[in-house]
Amino acid sequence: MKIESAMLEDFARGAAFLGTGGGGDPYIGRLCCAHAIEMHGAPELLPLEALADDAKVFSVAGMGAPTVLVEKLFSLEEAHLAVSKLERFLGRRADAIIAAECGGINATLPVAYAAMRGLPVVDADGMGRAFPSIQMASFNVYGVACTPMVIANEHGESVIIETGSAIAAEQIGRSLVVHMGASAMLSCYPMTGAEAKRTAVAATQSVAYGIGRAIATGRGVGQPVAALLAYLRTTAYYRHAHLLFEGKIVDVERETTRGWVLGRCVLEALEDRGARLEIRFQNENLCALRDGRVIAIVPDLIVVIDRETAEPITTETLRYGQRVSVLGVSAPPAMRTREALAVFGPQAFRLDHPFVPIETLAATP
Amino acid sequence: MKIESAMLEDFARGAAFLGTGGGGDPYIGRLCCAHAIEMHGAPELLPLEALADDAKVFSVAGMGAPTVLVEKLFSLEEAHLAVSKLERFLGRRADAIIAAECGGINATLPVAYAAMRGLPVVDADGMGRAFPSIQMASFNVYGVACTPMVIANEHGESVIIETGSAIAAEQIGRSLVVHMGASAMLSCYPMTGAEAKRTAVAATQSVAYGIGRAIATGRGVGQPVAALLAYLRTTAYYRHAHLLFEGKIVDVERETTRGWVLGRCVLEALEDRGARLEIRFQNENLCALRDGRVIAIVPDLIVVIDRETAEPITTETLRYGQRVSVLGVSAPPAMRTREALAVFGPQAFRLDHPFVPIETLAATP
Repeated sequence: MKIESAMLEDFARGAAFLGTGGGGDPYIGRLCCAHAIEMHGAPELLPLEALADDAKVFSVAGMGAPTVLVEKLFSLEEAHLAVSKLERFLGRRADAIIAAECGGINATLPVAYAAMRGLPVVDADGMGRAFPSIQMASFNVYGVACTPMVIANEHGESVIIETGSAIAAEQIGRSLVVHMGASAMLSCYPMTGAEAKRTAVAATQSVAYGIGRAIATGRGVGQPVAALLAYLRTTAYYRHAHLLFEGKIVDVERETTRGWVLGRCVLEALEDRGARLEIRFQNENLCALRDGRVIAIVPDLIVVIDRETAEPITTETLRYGQRVSVLGVSAPPAMRTREALAVFGPQAFRLDHPFVPIETLAATP
Repeated sequence: MKIESAMLEDFARGAAFLGTGGGGDPYIGRLCCAHAIEMHGAPELLPLEALADDAKVFSVAGMGAPTVLVEKLFSLEEAHLAVSKLERFLGRRADAIIAAECGGINATLPVAYAAMRGLPVVDADGMGRAFPSIQMASFNVYGVACTPMVIANEHGESVIIETGSAIAAEQIGRSLVVHMGASAMLSCYPMTGAEAKRTAVAATQSVAYGIGRAIATGRGVGQPVAALLAYLRTTAYYRHAHLLFEGKIVDVERETTRGWVLGRCVLEALEDRGARLEIRFQNENLCALRDGRVIAIVPDLIVVIDRETAEPITTETLRYGQRVSVLGVSAPPAMRTREALAVFGPQAFRLDHPFVPIETLAATP
């Protein structure tokens, strides 16, 4: 399957959904993709299992606070500077491009970059959603080295980082990105096809498209939220999906600090008088508490969407008075193992609550 | 000539003098050198003009606030990580090691590292003194690219930086070093023998030894300051050298910020009642004002020494009550050109005074 221009609106909307509040404005990623496809042709979406074991797979991603990303457009030249520096450093050329995260701009960017390079983009990613930090990837959990990692910016500056751990790479990378103006492009986790097949979360790019498609189709019959939930229930990973809350935003606290957007949002129920939902976020939504009780928690997905249109709402566009639906969705199983939870479970975000799967929480009275 | 262990005490003391207040405790550099020479043998001090045009010359230096450097010992392993990463990145091996600055620890470190590698150390450097920033080097002024530059730390982490300007390399490097704990090792300005001969300040390592030797000899006859001044007047660059002030330190303000030590020191005259000298510094001493009038200014050298022993005193060891002599010394001519002053003249340090050579200031009533 190729990713054609006509698919981009749905793909970008689905990627915004999997961004769980983070990943930046999908409209920007879509424009960037459309331009690249127009210039260079549609890239092949390569099933993960179709990768040759010895294929050279390179990731590309933007790093930084989404509040800055939306103002500072990514350029594919920066992406190419990052990937090509890493290719040169390793002395091997990319056979395929993979997304580090399939949420927001970081889902669409690898598609645009693959188009520019005339390479396939792998139908998979390293998170099955979006996360705020580089080490929070299945690649890291299951043993692919994060470095050498290259960071490049719009001034043609590039930095190659080598560390012993993905956390150290994140810390050094973050300090650089903050210095470089709170956003930059990076390529990390260089891997073989065999490593990608062992560690990546499969089929997430095509699910992103499916989500966007379901919302569009549902809008045609006036039921976008129901259509979306119905589609999610047909997928391999995201099948535990339900409405957590419907309400009006009555409070948003948000600050851009150290290259992240940190904050919380409070909703008041529309129907069920007095009920409140609090959502805490760090770029992405991390935890949803209904009247103080956890009803969904990271790495499961918490997504705020417009109540009427099911349009995903990113953390930086949450506004007082918005009427929204909040969905809870199960994370892929590989993102819920003990090893995985050690890297991006609630404790990794200093949340006091343990991880409990959303389907268990839903079944608890 | 080889740099033997027996020469290190004088060499390190002279390097501290050329450090003009910066560059860290020379005792640490001396220990590091003595150990390397004991393990690997004395390195050759190669005259700058003896370098082959096609020789591969690599620099090595510590970067960070001297207040931190004195607590966090440099290791040659870090130095080797930085240089060897740069060698591998460029695909060429070092034929000789050069000091980026001949002041303080950064004069002795290349000697120790050259000993470890069994390579000659060039009798030259890129500053003819010490400066707080990477771009403030004759290499940069006269057209050697600062990057690729490698920064390495004690955790085995390394970063290769490529930028279009030495200032950008300094800014990115500084933000990394602050993140890495305010000190790290670096290798930058990779160059050929021809480039070194065209841009380096010659003979500064042997002058450092000569300065230390003169102080030691002078102590033997109870006249270290006079012996030091007499020696400086025999050198090619530092021949305008005189006593600026003798006094007691009555005030020291100092803060460690953004990887530097910034501050000022005020002296009260011992003999000439009421006269005061103010010295402003950023790692290195930058400007000396006697009763508000500039009597020496960067890039000329301002050095605070113990009044009795002529021992150089670094900015981080200035203390209330110390009785000191302050010397002013002319910078090498290549460090006083218009191009050079644009990079490290008074304006580069946001000082309001223009550069006037110390010999001109001394002749002005």
